[in-house]
Amino acid sequence: MKTLKEIQEYITHTIQHLDWNKAPRGLYEPIEYTLEGGGKRVRPALLLLTASMYNANLEEATAAAMAVEIFHNFTLLHDDVMDKSDTRRGRKTVHIKWNENTAILSGDQMMIEAYSQIAKLSANKLKIVLPLFNKMATEICEGQQYDVDFETQDDVTIPEYTEMIRLKTAVLLATALKIGALLGNADETEAQALYDFGINIGLAFQIKDDYLDVYGDEKTFGKPIGGDILCGKKTYMWLSAWKNAGEDERRELMGWLHNQEAIPSDKIHAVRNIYTKVGASKECEVAMEEYHQKAVAELDKIDKNGDKTQELRNLAENLMGRNK
Amino acid sequence: MKTLKEIQEYITHTIQHLDWNKAPRGLYEPIEYTLEGGGKRVRPALLLLTASMYNANLEEATAAAMAVEIFHNFTLLHDDVMDKSDTRRGRKTVHIKWNENTAILSGDQMMIEAYSQIAKLSANKLKIVLPLFNKMATEICEGQQYDVDFETQDDVTIPEYTEMIRLKTAVLLATALKIGALLGNADETEAQALYDFGINIGLAFQIKDDYLDVYGDEKTFGKPIGGDILCGKKTYMWLSAWKNAGEDERRELMGWLHNQEAIPSDKIHAVRNIYTKVGASKECEVAMEEYHQKAVAELDKIDKNGDKTQELRNLAENLMGRNK
Repeated sequence: MKTLKEIQEYITHTIQHLDWNKAPRGLYEPIEYTLEGGGKRVRPALLLLTASMYNANLEEATAAAMAVEIFHNFTLLHDDVMDKSDTRRGRKTVHIKWNENTAILSGDQMMIEAYSQIAKLSANKLKIVLPLFNKMATEICEGQQYDVDFETQDDVTIPEYTEMIRLKTAVLLATALKIGALLGNADETEAQALYDFGINIGLAFQIKDDYLDVYGDEKTFGKPIGGDILCGKKTYMWLSAWKNAGEDERRELMGWLHNQEAIPSDKIHAVRNIYTKVGASKECEVAMEEYHQKAVAELDKIDKNGDKTQELRNLAENLMGRNK
Repeated sequence: MKTLKEIQEYITHTIQHLDWNKAPRGLYEPIEYTLEGGGKRVRPALLLLTASMYNANLEEATAAAMAVEIFHNFTLLHDDVMDKSDTRRGRKTVHIKWNENTAILSGDQMMIEAYSQIAKLSANKLKIVLPLFNKMATEICEGQQYDVDFETQDDVTIPEYTEMIRLKTAVLLATALKIGALLGNADETEAQALYDFGINIGLAFQIKDDYLDVYGDEKTFGKPIGGDILCGKKTYMWLSAWKNAGEDERRELMGWLHNQEAIPSDKIHAVRNIYTKVGASKECEVAMEEYHQKAVAELDKIDKNGDKTQELRNLAENLMGRNK
């Protein structure tokens, strides 16, 4: 099992065979529902890719990969409650399909299930992996808190925003890569290079997501375009535009931000035009490319020719949408 | 540090010195607030008592004790959101003082903090303790789910209720005792006897809590009497009364249950009289005493004369309110 395709099939199969047929049903049904919701399974795939690179024990790597995927889905579940999102991956969210208390409690249990997967590791691996997993989990909560804080904060800078998405999004990718490598006894330098690859590719990926919300194609983006504009989210695009805008353009941006009665397509169109005009699209493209290059440079530290890291390079290209 | 008093002072001191002075404040302030709310610190005390009995490493025992106490407070925090409780230990609950999203996210982080304490154990101890901790955490969530399920279920039996409180309350006491013992390399038989002591004392304690809600003295009980009666909670008292009641008394009980306009003190007084009349108070007293005896019998397996388990016996007596 060396190629990304093989790994993803293996993950799908493994997730399908997790046993949630337990009592009380009210606790476990929402977990099963959440995990069968799909998604690209990028995080466990990253972990299994590096585990495979370093010939880690498959059973241990699988448990750690499941932990990472279950934890990720737990964060989505609780985030959806906090954001009052009604749908996720085209299906009702748990707090809509059941209720808010169910979403809270089943989410809590999902976190425990993640730690129960981690507990399968051998004593020595456990002692290495658990602190990494805890640090990652803490940073994701911190990222989520900054995201909430930024909603009511008018002076968020791009570095602050970048730090928030590093915590909320990139750290999970990075930690998955590092855990896979350490399960295979990779040396600390290579494990750290993989971690830093994950951070940079995670940042590039999140900034791309912000970009595609404005300039994407609904069919390939997977969700409606302009969602961030309509809910007034301070994305990389917005922050870049705000920073670059003159007085008139700031007034225009503010006007659209607070205009709740505008026809959505008009609002999206107008804001997009401002973004392009003030160079936010360009700045966003440059940032994406920079983080992508930084990511690849980390892999070069491990192998220049790309023999060992080829699948990881492919996955990075996939994430950046260059292979489509 | 052998006596309960010394241990409790040590716990108070240790909790006060946990460092929550970290950013983002919105995440950590509610955790600090929750943990400084007090409580009797029974669970970490149980863990440190058995750790002391078996000469466990103090640093490891302290970390595990903090994990147990932080986890317990996390469950209270999320339970308060689910139950929409406005106060806890005489102070505003987190979702009232801040908001619901804060209570969810800071609660999540508290669970991670509990696991971060567990992660301090040595590799070999970690491999033993983490699965026990996970099992306990899972059972507490299951217990909470049953508690929620029972609210809308009319045919709950006393054995079902007992299983629910075993999961929701007793398992945490039992696991604390067992972890302390295993950190000191207790043999499996003694660790299990301590676990079973914890289960039985936990059941006795919860049934006593149900009893005191009806017959207690507000000053020593620490919360208003009759709360369970007013909110129509299916406690041990209610289930016992319902089981023993004749047709007339069941009609009376149902009448009071659905009577939202009754003067609270009248309702409490009337329901209490039915409880007494149909023998629910007696049945409750017998059950408490039985579980208490079973608990003590488990300690007798370890030492008949009570030299080694004296403080544990004292604590059990304290919990049952016999030393007051």
